[in-house]
Amino acid sequence: MNMVELIEKKRDGEPLSKTEIHFIINSYVLGDIPDYQMSAWAMAVYFRGMSLEETAELTLAMAQSGDQLDLSTLGGRFVDKHSTGGVGDKTTLLLGPMVAACGVPVAKMSGRGLGHTGGTIDKLSAVPGFRVELTQQEFLAQVKKIGLSVIAQTGNLVPADRLLYALRDVTATVSSIPLIASSVMSKKIAAGAQGIVLDVKYGSGAFMKTVEEARMLAKTMVNIGKALGRQTIAVLSNMNQPLGRAVGNSLEILEVADALQGKGPDDLMEVSLELGAWMLVAGDAVPNVGAGKVCLRHSIESGAAWNKFLVFLTEQGGDAQAVADRRLKIAPWNLPILAQQTGYVQAFDAHKIGILAMALGAGRITKESPIDLGTGVVLTRKAGEWVEAGEPIFQLYGSSKEMLAEGLLLGQNLASVGKEAPELPPLIEEVIQ
Amino acid sequence: MNMVELIEKKRDGEPLSKTEIHFIINSYVLGDIPDYQMSAWAMAVYFRGMSLEETAELTLAMAQSGDQLDLSTLGGRFVDKHSTGGVGDKTTLLLGPMVAACGVPVAKMSGRGLGHTGGTIDKLSAVPGFRVELTQQEFLAQVKKIGLSVIAQTGNLVPADRLLYALRDVTATVSSIPLIASSVMSKKIAAGAQGIVLDVKYGSGAFMKTVEEARMLAKTMVNIGKALGRQTIAVLSNMNQPLGRAVGNSLEILEVADALQGKGPDDLMEVSLELGAWMLVAGDAVPNVGAGKVCLRHSIESGAAWNKFLVFLTEQGGDAQAVADRRLKIAPWNLPILAQQTGYVQAFDAHKIGILAMALGAGRITKESPIDLGTGVVLTRKAGEWVEAGEPIFQLYGSSKEMLAEGLLLGQNLASVGKEAPELPPLIEEVIQ
Repeated sequence: MNMVELIEKKRDGEPLSKTEIHFIINSYVLGDIPDYQMSAWAMAVYFRGMSLEETAELTLAMAQSGDQLDLSTLGGRFVDKHSTGGVGDKTTLLLGPMVAACGVPVAKMSGRGLGHTGGTIDKLSAVPGFRVELTQQEFLAQVKKIGLSVIAQTGNLVPADRLLYALRDVTATVSSIPLIASSVMSKKIAAGAQGIVLDVKYGSGAFMKTVEEARMLAKTMVNIGKALGRQTIAVLSNMNQPLGRAVGNSLEILEVADALQGKGPDDLMEVSLELGAWMLVAGDAVPNVGAGKVCLRHSIESGAAWNKFLVFLTEQGGDAQAVADRRLKIAPWNLPILAQQTGYVQAFDAHKIGILAMALGAGRITKESPIDLGTGVVLTRKAGEWVEAGEPIFQLYGSSKEMLAEGLLLGQNLASVGKEAPELPPLIEEVIQ
Repeated sequence: MNMVELIEKKRDGEPLSKTEIHFIINSYVLGDIPDYQMSAWAMAVYFRGMSLEETAELTLAMAQSGDQLDLSTLGGRFVDKHSTGGVGDKTTLLLGPMVAACGVPVAKMSGRGLGHTGGTIDKLSAVPGFRVELTQQEFLAQVKKIGLSVIAQTGNLVPADRLLYALRDVTATVSSIPLIASSVMSKKIAAGAQGIVLDVKYGSGAFMKTVEEARMLAKTMVNIGKALGRQTIAVLSNMNQPLGRAVGNSLEILEVADALQGKGPDDLMEVSLELGAWMLVAGDAVPNVGAGKVCLRHSIESGAAWNKFLVFLTEQGGDAQAVADRRLKIAPWNLPILAQQTGYVQAFDAHKIGILAMALGAGRITKESPIDLGTGVVLTRKAGEWVEAGEPIFQLYGSSKEMLAEGLLLGQNLASVGKEAPELPPLIEEVIQ
């Protein structure tokens, strides 16, 4: 087989066969196909797209390009969850204890954040002593013991995606639905998932700006799951304003602790209950979503989820007591951004809040950037809430006065205030399965 | 400037500015833009195209990427000619002496053949002793002295095109009209051409298969020429069957010798007269094409063109007497392909004749392949001519019996014979200026 002919085929809109797709992925990982051919191919895919058959095969070829976890020793169906990412998205940290408390084990490998704010692993790093890296044996042993472990992606999992994603990032070929969908799904499949619950976000703070794009991505991923025999459910949720009130690593851990003790913001709870309930359904623990939500609510009311969280932190070396006592490192300087007028907060620009949080040090500008775990933004008001002129709308946390001054500049006009209560879109738009 | 953003811009169909195009070409030549970004960009250009302004600017940026010849010392307007290539195309060898004999100097740098048959430089290599490489001083001195020199491309002329062409070749991005047009025109402009005559061929033996594609390429190149202040004329000619009767290096030199002595095949003469007349017009030697053709015919009838050819060969170290005496190395084995029935030859497949000639050793399979100069094909009949069953339609020349046997397999059914005289398309379709 000849890569030039395969690029040509895709360029001319002809479908690639299974054998051809596996040849491309395997040869690329082996270094037999150079980057310059792979990037031309990715651009041809950008323009021509891929059929469902091609996308499913690409997913499988990538999943098989490195190690694959066998989680059958955990017993039952293993369910994994993935979010396409948004500002203030801490659902994994909430869902882990809640779902585990309802009897479905959660063995999650997460990436570090590459967007405007830290990823789940960065957030967990804000807990003193917490080990984000475990050996595979430790990881599985912990899941068997307490039903929950969250670690940084480890080993040689999906090297094809690692290579291809890095290449797409520098060749303007990221925003292609079949390439995004196969990237996400290949990692879930290599991680051994039999059930997959996807949180596909749309809006200013999400990768997909419109609900139509998000719906297409969600459908593509659900169809890949079906084609590869994995039960897959996608929840489309709105990300025009940050999820919850906290954006920033330590700040978000504190919000998770509140939420697990029954004091979570409504939007965060709504999304978490929906996703968690689908995880319980996919894990065969409950007959339907309604029953799932009942179980999850009970896990909070009973203290079981909060307790599971503390045990989980302790098991991975983290100082759970510091979380319970709210003794995390929070940036020493803070500054409120005040409402200029009285009225209802009309809308927040989640994207700009993300950029603001990054400027304060809460996210990475490049892969190598360090993260300042104690910095970030806390929304004292959310869209639809009433504010008096002169009251704070949100609060900045920074490690220095200079940083706050920069944040102040970026923080202007991120939220508008008006006389009428705004009509907000539903938080959960649709469930696709 | 950031290459990822420029790829994105082109990918999204936005035009690139002058500055952006020069940045891309200059940075690529300097090695600051890696191949994998350049190939993604080229694929985006493949899908999105380029405006005339962009294409002209790309041409200029490439022309300026290396050395540029100054031919003003030759006096008058310097005219160059380029053919998009075809099977049996030996017009440069005919035009050089004819145009020079009519008083317009010809200083031509040619490439080696990369298609199915040798290029002009390969053909000249069939003349014993002929030097295809001269220094720039020798080259210009010879043009001043006798009005004619043809050499292999030399020095650091248009490095951007050399790099980009090699990359396009292995990333399925060759067949993009703005990229082809800028590649051709940048070389002519760097070579100092003030007038440019283009032979744009279409048909089975040409790079452009349809007249529509060829017309679009021709128009693009003529418009680039106009935009950059170079008089440019494109002649669209048909390449469904080989031009002339000989295909192969030594065989074509002998056909050129015949043609310069008034015994050339009609089609070869018609194309050469048309192109040569436009060269004389562009070189301000004649007022119009008609006058140009009169002058060119006279150069043959008077023996001036033939004489110029012999002087030219001698001047570059070649054994002109060997050409005059037809003592070139011709492959020892030959074999006729016979007509199966009596009638008119309906059509030749020039592409397949090219592949056959390559298999016999007359062309390069890869850039490094050696050429067997004495091999090739001679058409004893051309499309529209009458043949009796059992008479040869064409003749194979090979260096071994095995090679002829292979040629025999490829040589079947390359020409069809029928009762009715075929309707042949006009050889010259259109002149675009």
